[in-house]
Amino acid sequence: MSSSFSWSRLIRFVDENGAVRYGDVVEERPASEMIGTKVDTLDGDPFGAMTRTHQQATVTKILCPLESTPIFMCIGLNYRQHANEANLTIAEHPVVFTKPADALNSPLDDVTVFLDIQSQLDYEGELCVIIGKDGKNIPEAEALDYVLGYAAGNDVSARKFQLPPFSGGQFCYGKSFDGFAPVGPCIVSKTLIADPQTLDLVTRVDGELRQQTSTADMIWTVKQIIAHLSRGTTLRKGTIIMTGTPSGVGLFTPNGLLKDGSVVEVSISRVGSIQNKMVFE
Amino acid sequence: MSSSFSWSRLIRFVDENGAVRYGDVVEERPASEMIGTKVDTLDGDPFGAMTRTHQQATVTKILCPLESTPIFMCIGLNYRQHANEANLTIAEHPVVFTKPADALNSPLDDVTVFLDIQSQLDYEGELCVIIGKDGKNIPEAEALDYVLGYAAGNDVSARKFQLPPFSGGQFCYGKSFDGFAPVGPCIVSKTLIADPQTLDLVTRVDGELRQQTSTADMIWTVKQIIAHLSRGTTLRKGTIIMTGTPSGVGLFTPNGLLKDGSVVEVSISRVGSIQNKMVFE
Repeated sequence: MSSSFSWSRLIRFVDENGAVRYGDVVEERPASEMIGTKVDTLDGDPFGAMTRTHQQATVTKILCPLESTPIFMCIGLNYRQHANEANLTIAEHPVVFTKPADALNSPLDDVTVFLDIQSQLDYEGELCVIIGKDGKNIPEAEALDYVLGYAAGNDVSARKFQLPPFSGGQFCYGKSFDGFAPVGPCIVSKTLIADPQTLDLVTRVDGELRQQTSTADMIWTVKQIIAHLSRGTTLRKGTIIMTGTPSGVGLFTPNGLLKDGSVVEVSISRVGSIQNKMVFE
Repeated sequence: MSSSFSWSRLIRFVDENGAVRYGDVVEERPASEMIGTKVDTLDGDPFGAMTRTHQQATVTKILCPLESTPIFMCIGLNYRQHANEANLTIAEHPVVFTKPADALNSPLDDVTVFLDIQSQLDYEGELCVIIGKDGKNIPEAEALDYVLGYAAGNDVSARKFQLPPFSGGQFCYGKSFDGFAPVGPCIVSKTLIADPQTLDLVTRVDGELRQQTSTADMIWTVKQIIAHLSRGTTLRKGTIIMTGTPSGVGLFTPNGLLKDGSVVEVSISRVGSIQNKMVFE
């Protein structure tokens, strides 16, 4: 017996038999606290209909809720306080860059960091928007209709490659390495978050508070970002929009950059949190 | 009867019965001159084995030789003369940005340009490298083993969105609109081009010469670019690398920007040429 329904917080996980399953989590919680617990399992396609199996399974490993993504569309300098700390002028339009599909990483997995970029390694806690259906020229008023849900994300950044003399000042390269985009722990359904500009975002490094803000401080709202990104461009389902990071990144914090073994936790209210360790090769 | 073999110039086209086919073209020629001609048809997967059908079909429409791409990885400022005309310092590493999958366009199709970006619309003729198999941390010495072949491309650019006050100086957005990357007319097999730094690239707008260079003028060679892009990052088969444009873009040419109806032709020796009309909405 099964029935179509709206899930709350969609997770993807490995169960006690080693099978990859979808599950539904009712309350917000960190990825780490899901391990060893039982969750209701789901069948189907996150972008189409999902049905309850009316069974439970034990979470032994938590995976990224999305198996893959076509692309990450990322917004730079989208919090007023971060624009101030970076001493950068706010542009007339959103600042856009990308991360490729293979940057996608799981909520609790390590981020492997090769030798060349171990200096100036940084975190950026961000609210991620998961696009639920293809759209182009989406008006702001309809933008949230194209959202599947929200997740927490870390836009891991090798600052060295963001500096103009080193690589021309384009952001893409230093943010595009495999696994440089942990996302999760779940996709919280948009039906649970009426207004994405009312969430609290907190980033901690080894337990120390580094970023704390409300998404109300965004320069460009989620609706405006979706309208902008879809202007003349097909925004594909599964696209992950990283909506920008608030103030408090490591580069502008004394002794703030990441080291071998640093654990970065990004938490978003009503979503949950991800925790990823940096492992220097 | 069929046999596996190496194709010379792989095209994808619509035949006289409306079917989409692969074909093999022996000599270099413009996409426009292929229409109405008969070509040898092929079956199979461009990234795996292809076989001759030992039949011919008539080309009624020429399609992009690749049906899709995971992503375009693009190099900025990769010709010394273009870096000079743009008055930009050459960085220590390649300047990297991306175009998304839906930017892919066919060798003779129109480029549709929406109202907001009709001012400062520009062309960039480029040598495209098509990646033939997945790779990561590819050494320069092995880089060409990962190449399927080469094509001509136009990195159509809305300059307005490249300027810092307007959108923060990141290149991605103004180059990412649907259809802003015509590629073709064929993929010329790497077996026919021993050294990709020996090709001549010519761009014409409405027949007027705008760009003319040898790929020998590249700051970063194809081998170096592949090694750089695959460092810590999985470069997927089907990825299209746009290797940068030479001097002579419209922005730095008197009255050089594109207008409604402008036809841009990008020709590369031993590859062929593409011709795309700008159509203002």
